[in-house]
This record gives sequence, structure tokens and C-alpha cells, in this order.
Amino acid sequence: MTDSPLRVAMIGHGFMGAAHSVGWRQAPRMFDLPRAVDMAVVVGRRADAAAEAATRWGWRGAADDWRAVVRSDEVDVVDIVTPGDSHAEIAIAALDAGKHVLCEKPLANSLGEAEAMAAVADRARERGQVAMVGFTYRRVPAVTHMRDLIAEGVVGRIAHVRAAYRQDWLVDRDMPLAWRLQREHAGSGALGDIGAHIVDMVQFVTGQAVTAVSGTLETIVARRPLQAAGSGLQGTAGEGYGDVTVDDAALFTGRLSGGALASFEATRFATGRKNGLEIEISGERGALRFALEDLNALEYYDRTAPEDRQGFSRILVTEGAHPYLSGWWPPGHMLGYEHGFTHQVVDLVEAIATGTSPHPTFAEGLSVQRVLDAVERSDHDGSRWTSTGDEAGDDRGGER
Amino acid sequence: MTDSPLRVAMIGHGFMGAAHSVGWRQAPRMFDLPRAVDMAVVVGRRADAAAEAATRWGWRGAADDWRAVVRSDEVDVVDIVTPGDSHAEIAIAALDAGKHVLCEKPLANSLGEAEAMAAVADRARERGQVAMVGFTYRRVPAVTHMRDLIAEGVVGRIAHVRAAYRQDWLVDRDMPLAWRLQREHAGSGALGDIGAHIVDMVQFVTGQAVTAVSGTLETIVARRPLQAAGSGLQGTAGEGYGDVTVDDAALFTGRLSGGALASFEATRFATGRKNGLEIEISGERGALRFALEDLNALEYYDRTAPEDRQGFSRILVTEGAHPYLSGWWPPGHMLGYEHGFTHQVVDLVEAIATGTSPHPTFAEGLSVQRVLDAVERSDHDGSRWTSTGDEAGDDRGGER
Amino acid sequence: MTDSPLRVAMIGHGFMGAAHSVGWRQAPRMFDLPRAVDMAVVVGRRADAAAEAATRWGWRGAADDWRAVVRSDEVDVVDIVTPGDSHAEIAIAALDAGKHVLCEKPLANSLGEAEAMAAVADRARERGQVAMVGFTYRRVPAVTHMRDLIAEGVVGRIAHVRAAYRQDWLVDRDMPLAWRLQREHAGSGALGDIGAHIVDMVQFVTGQAVTAVSGTLETIVARRPLQAAGSGLQGTAGEGYGDVTVDDAALFTGRLSGGALASFEATRFATGRKNGLEIEISGERGALRFALEDLNALEYYDRTAPEDRQGFSRILVTEGAHPYLSGWWPPGHMLGYEHGFTHQVVDLVEAIATGTSPHPTFAEGLSVQRVLDAVERSDHDGSRWTSTGDEAGDDRGGER
Amino acid sequence: MTDSPLRVAMIGHGFMGAAHSVGWRQAPRMFDLPRAVDMAVVVGRRADAAAEAATRWGWRGAADDWRAVVRSDEVDVVDIVTPGDSHAEIAIAALDAGKHVLCEKPLANSLGEAEAMAAVADRARERGQVAMVGFTYRRVPAVTHMRDLIAEGVVGRIAHVRAAYRQDWLVDRDMPLAWRLQREHAGSGALGDIGAHIVDMVQFVTGQAVTAVSGTLETIVARRPLQAAGSGLQGTAGEGYGDVTVDDAALFTGRLSGGALASFEATRFATGRKNGLEIEISGERGALRFALEDLNALEYYDRTAPEDRQGFSRILVTEGAHPYLSGWWPPGHMLGYEHGFTHQVVDLVEAIATGTSPHPTFAEGLSVQRVLDAVERSDHDGSRWTSTGDEAGDDRGGER
Repeated sequence: MTDSPLRVAMIGHGFMGAAHSVGWRQAPRMFDLPRAVDMAVVVGRRADAAAEAATRWGWRGAADDWRAVVRSDEVDVVDIVTPGDSHAEIAIAALDAGKHVLCEKPLANSLGEAEAMAAVADRARERGQVAMVGFTYRRVPAVTHMRDLIAEGVVGRIAHVRAAYRQDWLVDRDMPLAWRLQREHAGSGALGDIGAHIVDMVQFVTGQAVTAVSGTLETIVARRPLQAAGSGLQGTAGEGYGDVTVDDAALFTGRLSGGALASFEATRFATGRKNGLEIEISGERGALRFALEDLNALEYYDRTAPEDRQGFSRILVTEGAHPYLSGWWPPGHMLGYEHGFTHQVVDLVEAIATGTSPHPTFAEGLSVQRVLDAVERSDHDGSRWTSTGDEAGDDRGGER
Repeated sequence: MTDSPLRVAMIGHGFMGAAHSVGWRQAPRMFDLPRAVDMAVVVGRRADAAAEAATRWGWRGAADDWRAVVRSDEVDVVDIVTPGDSHAEIAIAALDAGKHVLCEKPLANSLGEAEAMAAVADRARERGQVAMVGFTYRRVPAVTHMRDLIAEGVVGRIAHVRAAYRQDWLVDRDMPLAWRLQREHAGSGALGDIGAHIVDMVQFVTGQAVTAVSGTLETIVARRPLQAAGSGLQGTAGEGYGDVTVDDAALFTGRLSGGALASFEATRFATGRKNGLEIEISGERGALRFALEDLNALEYYDRTAPEDRQGFSRILVTEGAHPYLSGWWPPGHMLGYEHGFTHQVVDLVEAIATGTSPHPTFAEGLSVQRVLDAVERSDHDGSRWTSTGDEAGDDRGGER
Repeated sequence: MTDSPLRVAMIGHGFMGAAHSVGWRQAPRMFDLPRAVDMAVVVGRRADAAAEAATRWGWRGAADDWRAVVRSDEVDVVDIVTPGDSHAEIAIAALDAGKHVLCEKPLANSLGEAEAMAAVADRARERGQVAMVGFTYRRVPAVTHMRDLIAEGVVGRIAHVRAAYRQDWLVDRDMPLAWRLQREHAGSGALGDIGAHIVDMVQFVTGQAVTAVSGTLETIVARRPLQAAGSGLQGTAGEGYGDVTVDDAALFTGRLSGGALASFEATRFATGRKNGLEIEISGERGALRFALEDLNALEYYDRTAPEDRQGFSRILVTEGAHPYLSGWWPPGHMLGYEHGFTHQVVDLVEAIATGTSPHPTFAEGLSVQRVLDAVERSDHDGSRWTSTGDEAGDDRGGER
Repeated sequence: MTDSPLRVAMIGHGFMGAAHSVGWRQAPRMFDLPRAVDMAVVVGRRADAAAEAATRWGWRGAADDWRAVVRSDEVDVVDIVTPGDSHAEIAIAALDAGKHVLCEKPLANSLGEAEAMAAVADRARERGQVAMVGFTYRRVPAVTHMRDLIAEGVVGRIAHVRAAYRQDWLVDRDMPLAWRLQREHAGSGALGDIGAHIVDMVQFVTGQAVTAVSGTLETIVARRPLQAAGSGLQGTAGEGYGDVTVDDAALFTGRLSGGALASFEATRFATGRKNGLEIEISGERGALRFALEDLNALEYYDRTAPEDRQGFSRILVTEGAHPYLSGWWPPGHMLGYEHGFTHQVVDLVEAIATGTSPHPTFAEGLSVQRVLDAVERSDHDGSRWTSTGDEAGDDRGGER
């Protein structure tokens, strides 16, 4: 039976549905998977839209009742790409129904939901089910390679981490109010959407937890024009304007469990930065830097090299020796954004086939939520240092 | 009938087969094509290998007799990804059988073959068939955008073109002799394989022909160890070594039909350069530069800007306004190598559906061959300037 | 008398003395100054060392009593390059004696001293004396150009400022304890030494004040080996180790008087970053970025350009139209670190000759001290937001 | 007597006079020279202009008869910064009069003159006089470091050299005809002015000679408007236009004595490139790259590093361990264009004091002239390969 194809149901079919579909479609074609994949069904609220998405993206069928689908005997894996407010309900139902689950990030819109999901996933794990969160940037080869090099010790004890995710799509003050800018719909702003990525990436590459934070949230443009009638938005003020009720930018300083200081910046007002995720790790033996807008490269400074030839090198992470490259092209042939989704499917299928737990687990997703929650609490407390409650504790200060 | 799916036969299934398969698989999923695509059959010499490729890459069937396939009523498009020495025979047979043809570059291994192919394609064109050469780098969005900007006049009259394609996979002198390094098998070395790309790209982005060249070919490592018995290589010398009979590097200067000087360098000995295609166009009003190892960016210098703020800008070619981006992701989300193959399918299908001629035509492929041939003749003549025979004539020298 | 040469006395002759000497030596040779310069005397504690410095760097004479020198009728300008703990006493004495004063940054080691100096300078101003602080990075042409472009409105309303000054000379944990790492000698660590530079630069280029901060100071390596006997260091612990009593790193978030959020990072543990000062200003109409390790360039993103050609451009700030370039070389010929000291002399002499007040004034130097002081207070208060007391007030939050 | 100051006479006082003056002024202040320097006299055609230059740049006196000066007993070193057509006469007279000579590049306007100068310098060498050519780019620390690393073997056997010097100051077709664009005044165009620099740099860093070339010269804008009357230009055509009689651009391929192929490009039509000197050396063990517009950096690719972390590193050549840095600032503090002139004085004075021969000798300057001459001959012969006549012979082709 383990040789039968994995039958996948994808719940949701927005932008993330397109990206996940590429992953499911490409993984079996480019990699040797231990099990075949069957893109079985797309689920949406409206049957016709789901059917259209299925046809477009290459799924066998479509459905409009996710509850029925996640319980169906015809489904092995549930891939959740709906907005964050429905993640908990769907993921828990799917896990309870014995399915493997891949859930797009962030794990949930609230800490409570995330905790519940992690608990259910833990129990499901004992029954042999896997549950994975979709932080796909971990699977950009340069990022995975960064993690590997750090684990090998090339940077040594870490003193500093510098992480930023900067975009500019809100710079225009006349851009209308959208649902993503209202708390009741979106849950969070830059912090939860893009800040979550850099928190996860820092924890992933360093292998350490963020134990405390001091943070500031900011709504740079607090009122925006309402869109035309029918947009479903409820203006909180007359004259065609409404309040932005989530943050546009989040700046926070964190402490890692190994003692390092980390700076984080997530913003949608960094003019000219389109998808400007950057991370730099500075240690006793070297430094590593990654920038998403130069996706195939990893910068490396080797402090153990001869003094007269030290410098940041730009490693093109496209060699056969690099993570995930076995499935792709010769050296120097670039990969793009959606390749991470393919790698995600590769690792998920591998984990299901081998009975191991694929990272990031729901517990790792919960850990990110705890950091985001602590940032919000710190902001409400004048940016005072606030513990994330992570088991590693707040060991801020002192010699390490 | 035009609403029926285009049934595609792919002849060959090596490395290029993998890339073309991605194109056929992704194009209908990511773009609105005017006709559906049916990945009908993969053809190879050995039926089992072809069948394996078909399964792996998502083709409906496999076959081992390309002659039968190109004549079959079940096929509309023949996609040729075999080595260059078989291009002419297959392409001509397919065109004669009334099929549309996509032929991987270079068009052919000899100028005579290329001329015959272009002639046949011209006649087929009158019957409504399309014939296209696979210079996919034209369809990297930054390259297409470069062409568009030049056509709009942003660089003005061009004085200089600087093009290079530099790799380093032959630097190791102990790398064994491979069939790609023997003229009887490969036809050409760096000149025909990677030099062809930059000749095509220069002609594409400038809209001008290379009319004359002065060139030097070089075999940097002239003898290499033979591989183990059974490699099929015939050593031309005893003691386990054989002669490299193609060029490792080609340096040439060209004259464009508009008068500009162009420098070309194609080499496999540029240590550290993996896929180092670079092109820079310098004109009266501005300059543009593209580098394949920074695939999503285009550099632009605007000489008409205020003097105190002129500089090369790095345009991230990932906006909705940029070529081919409508099918992909939000701004700042990178594309990779194989996206060009998807765009190639998009344009080919569009051309078939609308009855227009897709570029590069076989005539354009022939034009590239003429330049490569002139470089070889120049090299044999002490690097003297040599006409390519292009209709625009050799107008080298003189005021423009 | 205004045609007589300005007689300059330099108090101190360490590393900064060498740099200031270049400024005094080069300015009259490369620029048309309104008054001649007479490098009259170098003052040091030990007469022989001062005499050696004078001979080496081209000063006419040497002396060992700064009090006598600042009162001397033979001196017009007092240039203070001693450590910060003596700035206040010397500067006040010189101003009281009717001299013009150039004082190396930081203005003083304590806020009280800085306030006294600014008050004295204000009164001296009324008597026609000038007093200037040596933040020479303002006079890197790219930085001055950045300020000019912002003043012209090219970035529009500013949302974000990102400033960092990162070095790595303390990464080695075995580096011995030096006087710069002890509070009683140095006053401050990374915050006061390099953090001061980025605070001044942000206030300079934006024309806005930092009104409040939330900050964290960190001593990453809290104990270091004592140097050999005779180093003058008093170990605070036995067994050859002593305490580092200043910060190695300072991270803080600031609020500008115009409403923007600013992030600041000053550290000596950023592996591989040698003199890594970077500043980026993000506004409604564009963005500007400067990095000291690419000293002759300024990056500019123009959001008002056509959408398909927006990108960060690298302006080489070496054109005749750029600040200070009239005195130097043709376009593309690089300037270095010490050119800022030459420009400082040019501006100081111009101000003296024209009776205007040269920037940065002591009041501007005091403003920087207030920010640093607020960072220390915030750190002591769990990183809570803390007002700098700047007159513009803390207008954090709210729509702008 | 060797302890007496070296009395220097500078013949000429144009742009290069300013740069050489900085060198003479700064070297004794920043470095420990074995002999003092006396900036004795500036010589010009017009006494008043020479006197003004002397005052401006800090020379003790001025004169208008170079013949008298070079024979004077009051002069030890003659520094020639006149246009190239007078180099031979002055240098030979000065050497015959027993002086040490520093002659700005190019050595001479004709090969015959250069040969005569080198012969005289050889004889003077036996009498203990030194003669040096002013290729100051050799003394940019990153370039000297490049030479040192190559000599240490870090790149191994060299396969390729890529050199370019690209500027854009002639792009504007309405720029008037200047004396630099007329052969009778300037001798040569881009080839002799900037091409000379890259030929010297290639020979310097590789330690190899260019033995043969295939080249093309181009006058991109052949006619330009005459300047207003009194410009001294003789128009060769009526109606206010005159002929440009030197090359605007020179492209040539060379063969090095060690067998490598080298490409050279010198042009004044590379839009946006201000002082775009670039050189890349590709070898079996690694590669090195330098770009003058990033003057303080050297890029290095180490092919012997672990495969998964190879990449081009950017070495900031500002460490104490790097060439010439002992005289300057801490790591990360940039040097500029004129520092090379200071280093030139340091090396010249050191050579005089120790009786050694400073590089580049006149023989090395002559070697560059031979390459330029061969490029011109090749251009006249349809770009055919042409020997430079260098003793290493033309070993083009064949296995090395």
C-alpha cells in the first residue's frame, strides 16, 4: 500500500494554490520520489471556481466541501493554502481524520490556535501522521546550505544576527484599504506576514530559539481611501476613508538562546525593495549572508583564511554538491521562487515514505507565533524586553 | 479544429529534453494559451529509455522511430532536442510532413545544413507552418525587456556591444576527453555551443546583423586522458591520451550592420564563471547590461537623466509591466533558468494559433551560423576581418 | 588682517592628528581658499613627541602647554584632536580666548560637558568666532550629495531610516583589554565611537532630529586578558583578566521629528565588516543608500521613473557637478577616507572668512550626545522608549 | 651627501602636475622615507604660470627653461609631466646630465623615441641613476596585491586574461574637436592613453610579455565641430568641422609569453563607464579580478577551496598586511586615486637611496609601446596577428 500514489487534496486556490500546485506538479518530474503523487482534488467555497483552478493547475477533480474531503478515504494528504483564520479548523480536522497535513504559514492567526494545532499534531505524530508548516524559504538551496554550514561550525559562536524583510507595496498613500490591512480579516500586518518568515529563518539556520524581544509596531499610513462599493470593507469613518488596523512595519530586537543579539525589520514601506529578505549571521569564525533578491547566491566570510585574502565571497549555490541541486540544471543555471515549493513536496513525500517528521513541524510553527506574540506584547509595553516563553528561557545579558 | 489540443512529439530526451518538458508542462498551467497542449510522445533510439523519459516527464507515450512519428497524423508539432548533427534531417522531414517545428539551437552543425533548413522553413511558412529555433535566453524577461527598451530608443545610436559567455568546466586538465570535445561528434566547441547564444542575443536585442568578424579560436588543453574502455572514443594517440579537436575558447570582434563594434568571448576556461553570459550595449542616450548569473535583473544607465544622478540602475525585472511576468509571481519573486522554456512554448503556441511567424525563425538561426562560420574562416586566415555574407553587407569603418 | 594666513594650533597628535594634518595640508593646495593657512604648531604633553609629529606632518612648530597656546596671540584657530575627556576644557578655554575652534567628535564624554561647550560656543558666535565638530563623514561627497537630494525632495516624505556602523575588530575573544574598553578611560564603547557617526549622519541628511529611542547595549565579551605589565590597565579581577566596562554593540530604534522610524546598529562584532557604515532613507518618492565601504557611490531609487525601469542606481559621485569635486580629479577617479578632512578645512576656512557658522555646530554635536544619552537611559529601563529631550518633542505614533 | 634632501624639479604643470605634486607632498608625511624630499622647482613655458603652480602646489621655486634646470647642480630628480611629444628630449637630456628621472606614461609618442630613451636609461643605470615610468595604477594596493598573489601561485597556470579600460567622455557627438583628438598633437587616442595602462597592468601582474596581437582601431565619430577661433586647431574641412585623426576605441586580442589569450578593450564610448578599468586573470588554481571603480577591492576565486563554498570573494585591500597600507589608515578606510602617486614617490626614493632599479623601468615602458605599435600595424593589416617583437617571441598556439 505504501507503493500506491499519495492522493493530495489542496484546500484553497488563491496565489499560494498556484505555487503549491507547481510544487506537486514538478517534484515527481524532477526528483526521484519514494512514492508517486496524485493531484487528486482542489477544494474551494465555490465549486465552479475550484473546478476552474483544478483544470488550470492540473488537478484531477474539484470539490466545495472541505470537511467531506478531509474525511474522505480517497485522500492521504491535505494541503492547506487558505487564509490564516481557517488553518486551525481545517488542519485539526484533517489530522483527526488521519491525514498527513501540509499547512501554509503562518500556522494560525492566534497563539491559542497555534498551540492547539501543535498539540494535535503531536498526537497525530504518534499515529504515524506528518504535519508540516509551509515556510518554503527554508528550502531555497542557499538557505539550506547556510543552515548546513552553520551546523558544520563555519561561523562558530554567533554574536549577531541581522534579519530584514522589506517590501514597498504600501508606499503609495492613495492605495485603497484592502482586507489585508484590517485586523478582523488579516489578523496581522507586516509582522505576521513577512516578519514570520525571518523569525523562522533565523531559528532554522542558527538552530536556536528567540527567547525574548523588544519591539515596535507601526502603522505608517493609518487611513486609506475605501474601495468602491461592494468591496466588503466596512469604513470606520465617513467620507470614503477607513482605518488601517494592522501594522505596516515591525522593528524588533531579539535574544537567541545561544546568547546572540538579533535585529529584525519587517516593513512594506522600504521604497525600492520588492522582496527584500536579507539575513546575516556573524560569528567568531566567519559570517554568512543571504538575500532573497539574489536567490541563488550565499555570501561567506571566512575569518580563518589567510589575513591578506579574507573577504565576503559570493557562492553560487547551483553546484551538484549543494542542497536540492541534484534535481535541476548544471552549475550556474538559476533557480527561482517556486522551486522551494517543489523541494517542500520532495521532503514531505520523503518523510511520509520513511515515517520521519518533516521540518518545520507544527511545534516549530508555534515557536514562530510565540515570537510574534511577544513582539506585540512588547510594543504594547513601550517596547520593553518581553519573554517569548520559549523553554530555552530568557538568558539576556551576561557573558556567554 | 483549431480548438483541438496541439499534439507535440519531442524527438530526443537528454538534458534539453528535461528543460523542454518543463516548458510544455508549465506553459498551459501558468499562462492563458490560445490552444491546449497535448504532450503526446517522446521519441528515442531505444524504446525503453524513451518510455522511461515519457513517464518521468509526463508525456503520454513513447516511440523509437522518429520518421514514423514526424509523419504521423497524430502529431501537430515536432520539438527537436537531439544533438545538432541530426537537426537538419529531422526538421526537414517534419516540415515536409506538414508539422510545426521547434528546433533546439544551434540550428545545425554545418552552414550548408542550416541553409537547407531555412529554405524548407520558408516554403513551409507559405503553407502556414511555423519553424522556430530554441534560443531560449531571448525569453528571459530581462533580455526581452532589454530588446524592448532598445527598440524604444532608450540607448540611441549604438557605438559598442560587449558580449561574453564564460564557463569553467574544462579548467581541470585531467578531465577526460568527452565526445563534446571531438569535432566528428560535436561539430564545434565553445564557439558553436555558447558563442552561438551571444551572437543570437546581440542580433536579437540590437535588431542588427553581425556583418563581419575578426576572430581567434583556441584549444587551450589539446590533449586529454581517454576515458575507460567502452566510452566509444577513438584516441588519436597511444598511452591513454587523445586529441581535443574542437575549440575551448573563441574570441572575436564583430561589426554590426548599424556600424557598432562588438566584442565576443566564449570560453570554458574562465575560472569561477559558471554560466557567465554577459552583454552590454552602449549608445548615445544610454546603456543596458544583462548578466545571466543575475537573471532577474537588467542594468540601465540613462544618459538623459540629470547629470548629478546618472548611474547604472539595477532594474528587477519582476513587475507586472515586464515581459512574461503576467504568468508568474508578485514583484521581487525570482524566476529561474527553465522559465525561458515555458515562455518559448507560450510564444510558439500563440504563433501557431494566430498564424504568425515566431522568432527566432530558421532564417535567424541561419544568420547565427553564418557568423560562426565567418569566425572559423577568419581564424584560419590569421584572424583577418571576414564577411559573414549577411545581406546588410560589411560596412566596417567610416562615419555613421 | 583678514588677508593674513589663519594660524592653526593642533592640540593632540594621535591617529586623528595625522588625518587632520592631511586636511590642513591639502586644502590650500587643491581648493581656492579665501584665506591662506599656516600650520603653526602641534601641541602634546611631551615636547619631543610633539616636535616629531610637527616635523613628520609639516607643522611649523611644537609646544607642550596647550593652555599657553590657546591664549597665544599667534594662533587664530584651535584644532582639538585629543581624547574626548579633554575636549570640554580645551574647547572652552580656546573659545574664551577668542579663537575659532574645530573639535573632533564626539563633542564630549558627558552630556553636561557637551551642554557647557554648546553654551560657550553660542556666546562666542556672537563675537564672530566659529565652533565646529569634526563629523567628517558628512563631507564625503556622496553623503553631502545625499543630503542635497533629500533637501531637493527626491525622496519625499520619509517613512524609514536604516543606519548601521559595523566593524569586527573585537571578534577575537583573546584580544587583550585596551583602554578603549574601559569606561573610566574611554567614556563609551561602540555607541559613542561609531554610533555617534550614524546618529549625526541621519540627522544631517534628513534635516530631522531623533526625538526618542528604544535601545539595547551589549557587552558581548565581558572579560578579556590583561596586557603585559606597564599597560596602565587596572585589572578588576585576578589571574590576568579584566572586565570590559563599555558596550561592544548598541542596537536602537529611533523616532525622527518628521515621524519616520529609524533603526540603528553599532557593533564591533560584525565579522567581515571593516568600516561598514551604511545608511538607507526610504521615502514616498524614492530612496537613497550610502555605504562607506563603497565611498564614492550613492544609490538612488526613483519611484517617479516609468514603472518598467525603476531600480536602484549606483551614482558615481565623482562628477564636476557633485559636492567638493571641483578640487579633485576627472570623473571616475576615486576619493578616499582623508578627503573628508580636507573638505572640513575648506568649509571651516570659508566660514571664518565669510563670518558664517560652519556645520556641524557645537549645538549639533550636543544633539548627538542627547541621543546617545537617551539610548543609555533606555537600555537601563528595559529598552523602553525614552525621549531625547530634543525640542522637536516626541511625536511618536499617529498619522503624519 | 646621501642624507641630503632629494631636490626635485617637475617639468610641466598640467593635470598630471597636480597629481604628482600630491605624491611628492604626501610621501614624506605618511611614510618613513630613507631620504628627505625637497620640492625644489616647477618648470613651465611661461614663468608666471609656473610660479602660480609652484605656489599653489607647494614647490619652492619656478622656472621657464627646462634645459637649464635639468643641467642644474641644484637638482637631483627630474619629474616629467609634459605631453608625450616632449618626453624623449627632456628625459634624455636629464639622464645625460646625471639626474634621476621619473617620466609620466606613455614613455613617448613613437616607438623610435621610446627605444632611444630606454637605451639612454640603460647606460645611466650603470652610472647609478634611476629611470622610472609613471604607470601609477601598478601602485594601487589591490593591483600590487594581485601581482603578489599571482607570483605566489594562487591562480596557477593562466589560461585567460581579460582587460578593459572604458570611459564615456566622447559619447556626445557635439563635443568639439580638441587637441587630444588630432594625431599631430596627441600622437594617439584611446589606444595610447588608456590602452597603455591595461597593457602595462597585464604585463605587470602576470609577469609575462604580450608577444603578438590582432587588433582593430576605430574612430567612432570621425568629424567634430571646431571650437571657437583661437583654439589653435586647424580644421581640415570647411564649415566649422574638423577631422578626428586618432582612434576613439581600440579592441585587440593578445598572446602572452606564457601562452594565455588576452582580450583588451580601450574606448571612450562606453556609456556610463567613467574610469572603467577592469582586469581579470583566470588560471588553473583560481582567478583574480580588479576594477578601478571599486579601487580598494580585489576579487578572488579559489578553485582549491571545498567545492560547496567556492565563490568570488571581495577582499578589501585595506589591512595592515596589504601593500602600502602601513602608511595609511585602519582597515576599511578607503584610499583614492592619488594615493598611487604617493606610493610611486615612496618607491622611487627608496630605489634612489638603495641604488636599486625602480619598476616600471624605461625598458618596461618601451615594452608597452611595442605592443601599441603592433596593434596599429595589425589594424592596418586587416587585424591580422602581428608580432610585438618582444624577445619572448610569438608562441601562439600549441599545447603549453
